[in-house]
Amino acid sequence: MSLANALRAKSITRIEGAAKIAVEQDYLAVEEPLEIRVGGRSVAVVMRTPGHDRELAAGFLVTEGIVRRRDDILDMVRCTSAEDVNRENILDVLLADGAQVDLARLTRHVFTSSSCGICSKASIDAVQAQFPRIAEACAPRRACVAALPEQLRAGQAAFAVTGGLHASALFDLAGKLELVREDVGRHNALDKLIGHAFLADRLPLAPRILLVSGRVSFELMQKALAAGIPCVVAISAPTSAAVEFAEASGQTLIGFVRGDRMNVYAGTIME
Amino acid sequence: MSLANALRAKSITRIEGAAKIAVEQDYLAVEEPLEIRVGGRSVAVVMRTPGHDRELAAGFLVTEGIVRRRDDILDMVRCTSAEDVNRENILDVLLADGAQVDLARLTRHVFTSSSCGICSKASIDAVQAQFPRIAEACAPRRACVAALPEQLRAGQAAFAVTGGLHASALFDLAGKLELVREDVGRHNALDKLIGHAFLADRLPLAPRILLVSGRVSFELMQKALAAGIPCVVAISAPTSAAVEFAEASGQTLIGFVRGDRMNVYAGTIME
Repeated sequence: MSLANALRAKSITRIEGAAKIAVEQDYLAVEEPLEIRVGGRSVAVVMRTPGHDRELAAGFLVTEGIVRRRDDILDMVRCTSAEDVNRENILDVLLADGAQVDLARLTRHVFTSSSCGICSKASIDAVQAQFPRIAEACAPRRACVAALPEQLRAGQAAFAVTGGLHASALFDLAGKLELVREDVGRHNALDKLIGHAFLADRLPLAPRILLVSGRVSFELMQKALAAGIPCVVAISAPTSAAVEFAEASGQTLIGFVRGDRMNVYAGTIME
Repeated sequence: MSLANALRAKSITRIEGAAKIAVEQDYLAVEEPLEIRVGGRSVAVVMRTPGHDRELAAGFLVTEGIVRRRDDILDMVRCTSAEDVNRENILDVLLADGAQVDLARLTRHVFTSSSCGICSKASIDAVQAQFPRIAEACAPRRACVAALPEQLRAGQAAFAVTGGLHASALFDLAGKLELVREDVGRHNALDKLIGHAFLADRLPLAPRILLVSGRVSFELMQKALAAGIPCVVAISAPTSAAVEFAEASGQTLIGFVRGDRMNVYAGTIME
């Protein structure tokens, strides 16, 4: 894969104990939407790493059972209409005459009836028009953040047994654990946590810190914003779209928390 | 969370060097579908860990921007019609009179126009009716499997820089690496790999071994079957639905490959 497509340079603040080290050239995994069309009809939008897009579109159609024979696909072309400023994120699959495809199967991954011109920026704008920006920025204390992962591990009973579950955990600003939810799906774990608060009529969840067990994508940041959560901490890496989303929505985003080391990708942290 | 909901006991074969140890009581993270309905209309099917289903349904509707006020949800009830043998996997959200919800947003996660009665078994049957069962079982050599993760790490350039990418890699039965694809989404990495082979008219991918960098869900096994891949190896854990799918489709499934240790969940391995 081309590293130029897959990586985006970003200046971050690396925390090592009491030291704050500004780093100009950390690298994020790029996450951008690809809209897949079949014969001009939008059938799916997937958040992906740019590169090998034709393979992705073909593989998606094959593994969803839409297309079966190599000859069914005549060509795949980038969107070319004049108003498409983001044509690199739109791919149209042209079918051969007589190709038998089951378009009824195509509803699964469509996430908007997207107009032409999709890009991260457009997606972020759309979500942020839907949910209010964070009203009051949240700068957690360094020692508080450093202590979160150990509390999650202690609370994550099923993961300890299977190694197969993602977790979302909610903490107050003093670092006190309020709620943990586990699920095979990382989105589900967060939905369960937010659903719990919603059903108790406790939204928005501010000021609170959300800790997620793995990596952070655009979609997890979007869910956190829907619940009004101002600070997200991840044990592993954020994607480029997650960081852009956090910056635009006023969320604090911290990742790679390992002992007293961590990276601040958006917002600030207090000593 | 209730461990009884989240865990499923499974007898596996644990390999430690040349020793094969039958283990009666290993535990898998349970993965089953939940169908979410709003006022009787099916709006989404998510693969999830059973438990906290009401929270999941509420959180899903909130974070998708469908429901905003606590009072919009009157109640959530399990499916009760007589023919629903799997009513624990169907939840109907009843809205309050006058609740303003945007049903047009609900298309995103619907993955079939599922009839009542969804369960893992039904999902597996539906997929396997769509793609042929593996014709010839694949029993890879132990030493070959043990050597796969190191080859993947060497080939995974972008992950080494960001820590933020999933990978899928294809090997022949001698353990020779043929193709690697990386992506922020684990499904995308596999779709890219399968799309590459499809576009070269090389499907089905047998006899071949697929290595995935993280955990294995139902959906990854389904994609592997769509490409005719007879053997899937994961560095981390499989879910319960992934193992059930492998058993039903004739795929070999090996997980937790760490040095010369590994677990065989379905199929067999050769010395």
